[in-house]
Amino acid sequence: MSAAHAAQADPLPSWNEGASKQSIVAFVQAVTNQNGPDYVAPTDRIATFDNDGTLWAEQPLYIQLAFAVDRVKALAPEHPEWRTTQPFQAVLEGDREALGATGVKGLLELVMATHAGMTSEEFDRIAKEWFATARHPRFNRPYTDLAFQPMVELLGYLRANGFKTYIVSGGGVEFMRVISEQLYGIPPEQVIGSSGKTRYELRDGVPVLVRLPELDFFDDKDGKPTAIQKFIGRRPLAAFGNSDGDHQMLQWTAAGSGRRLMGLVDHTDAEREFEYRVSSMGRLENAAVEAQQRGWTIVSMKDDWKRIFAFQ
Amino acid sequence: MSAAHAAQADPLPSWNEGASKQSIVAFVQAVTNQNGPDYVAPTDRIATFDNDGTLWAEQPLYIQLAFAVDRVKALAPEHPEWRTTQPFQAVLEGDREALGATGVKGLLELVMATHAGMTSEEFDRIAKEWFATARHPRFNRPYTDLAFQPMVELLGYLRANGFKTYIVSGGGVEFMRVISEQLYGIPPEQVIGSSGKTRYELRDGVPVLVRLPELDFFDDKDGKPTAIQKFIGRRPLAAFGNSDGDHQMLQWTAAGSGRRLMGLVDHTDAEREFEYRVSSMGRLENAAVEAQQRGWTIVSMKDDWKRIFAFQ
Repeated sequence: MSAAHAAQADPLPSWNEGASKQSIVAFVQAVTNQNGPDYVAPTDRIATFDNDGTLWAEQPLYIQLAFAVDRVKALAPEHPEWRTTQPFQAVLEGDREALGATGVKGLLELVMATHAGMTSEEFDRIAKEWFATARHPRFNRPYTDLAFQPMVELLGYLRANGFKTYIVSGGGVEFMRVISEQLYGIPPEQVIGSSGKTRYELRDGVPVLVRLPELDFFDDKDGKPTAIQKFIGRRPLAAFGNSDGDHQMLQWTAAGSGRRLMGLVDHTDAEREFEYRVSSMGRLENAAVEAQQRGWTIVSMKDDWKRIFAFQ
Repeated sequence: MSAAHAAQADPLPSWNEGASKQSIVAFVQAVTNQNGPDYVAPTDRIATFDNDGTLWAEQPLYIQLAFAVDRVKALAPEHPEWRTTQPFQAVLEGDREALGATGVKGLLELVMATHAGMTSEEFDRIAKEWFATARHPRFNRPYTDLAFQPMVELLGYLRANGFKTYIVSGGGVEFMRVISEQLYGIPPEQVIGSSGKTRYELRDGVPVLVRLPELDFFDDKDGKPTAIQKFIGRRPLAAFGNSDGDHQMLQWTAAGSGRRLMGLVDHTDAEREFEYRVSSMGRLENAAVEAQQRGWTIVSMKDDWKRIFAFQ
């Protein structure tokens, strides 16, 4: 076999040989081996992935938050009151500390204020325009370049083996759908996320869905297994996350019968990406403890990945 | 071509030749013809179907309500208070008039009281047991025999032409999922319905989702386009319903660009099924008016269908 051929035959070329890659390949081989004890029918091969920090970068800000920040700046002339109201004031003054101090509530407020009052189609257009022009502050590249190449390969590898791959993320569902097919090969109907309420109305006889500044569902922690049950109705066979917000999804996956794969992406690479377990974008503590105890797959970005982004 | 061959080649053998069948076949041919002006890529071929009264019978009671009624009777010994509380008293005394008088609120109360307080797995088991033993009062057959054979053929025909078929129904999502694959070939993740809230908890370290007696989402009327956007994230290319509860879903479908198919199942056959447009299970009025005006497909069960149930 030529080297080129061998490289082509490896479905996970951006993964270093090691325990993490081994655990993934062994799992996939086991559940797809019709003559083995761990075989699972294709219809039950469901894999769920967190998005922020698991499939793409989430530092220094969730990408959706960077979008909300840019929207606040763009909309500020129409909202003079934002100059003296938090969390908007912090955004307009570039005061990251004050922004961090508003916590999850402040972040949600930013998202609600900037994502509401328009139809779902208008939102889609605005988000697409933003992705076409905005750039990541450190890598100076479009945010669509910030997908983790090894995870993109993992998604493709699972699909090639009959899995249906889903995103199950705290991110806004309509925001993620703008890029999910292009970045991950995941169609909109396989993206589950947080959502705002919408109102159906007829405008000159044409029905539209208007986005309201009110949270409908926050897809984090306990919300993840709940959403999986509501949207998918089957327990995942494999699940990946990167923080305690994914802990319940991993527990729910692990509690199924037969062989399962639970994975955590551990941000250990300050040089090529970021190094953190605790940040204002969440923390990886309890989930890591349980992962260690139960032998779940902990993926060290530094050690397990040959490259992190496709552009590297 | 032999007669047997011709019959086999017809993907809709239980449909009489006529305008309804013609409109369906012409639509499918148009959107799948790569060289035609109405071509739609397979990924955008989404078709949504109401369930009660559209895919299976809903008289004299929604099948899920028949299930709830049986559950009230089974659980009554543990609930002496039900003997004097509506809507339970009406159920226990077989007083259909009093039950009808409690309206949608009463029906929801019955469903909540009988579907909650257990894990999602326990509910699944109880519903399966019920389907295995309960019988429809008029046809004296398992409720799983009550699927409309022409609609089952339509679902298969659409899938054979690259469509992804969904249920979008006011019925409870976990109830429908028990039978959706077997009856319609629709997997659980393509069933969208009403849902109760659930609570994630650890029982002896094992995570379970406990069903709570509280409505999470009522998938009817405005709720249908809202749910379609939230769960699927694409506008349907085709949609079928049978009542005003489906009106907004049909409007939402019709408002998309290009060629679309909107259909209503009209219960016109007292002999083989039921004849009604208005009943305690809903009404078909406004949607029929708009269907007439805009040339949507109105399927007359009496005239358009050779047979209604597979057993006939």
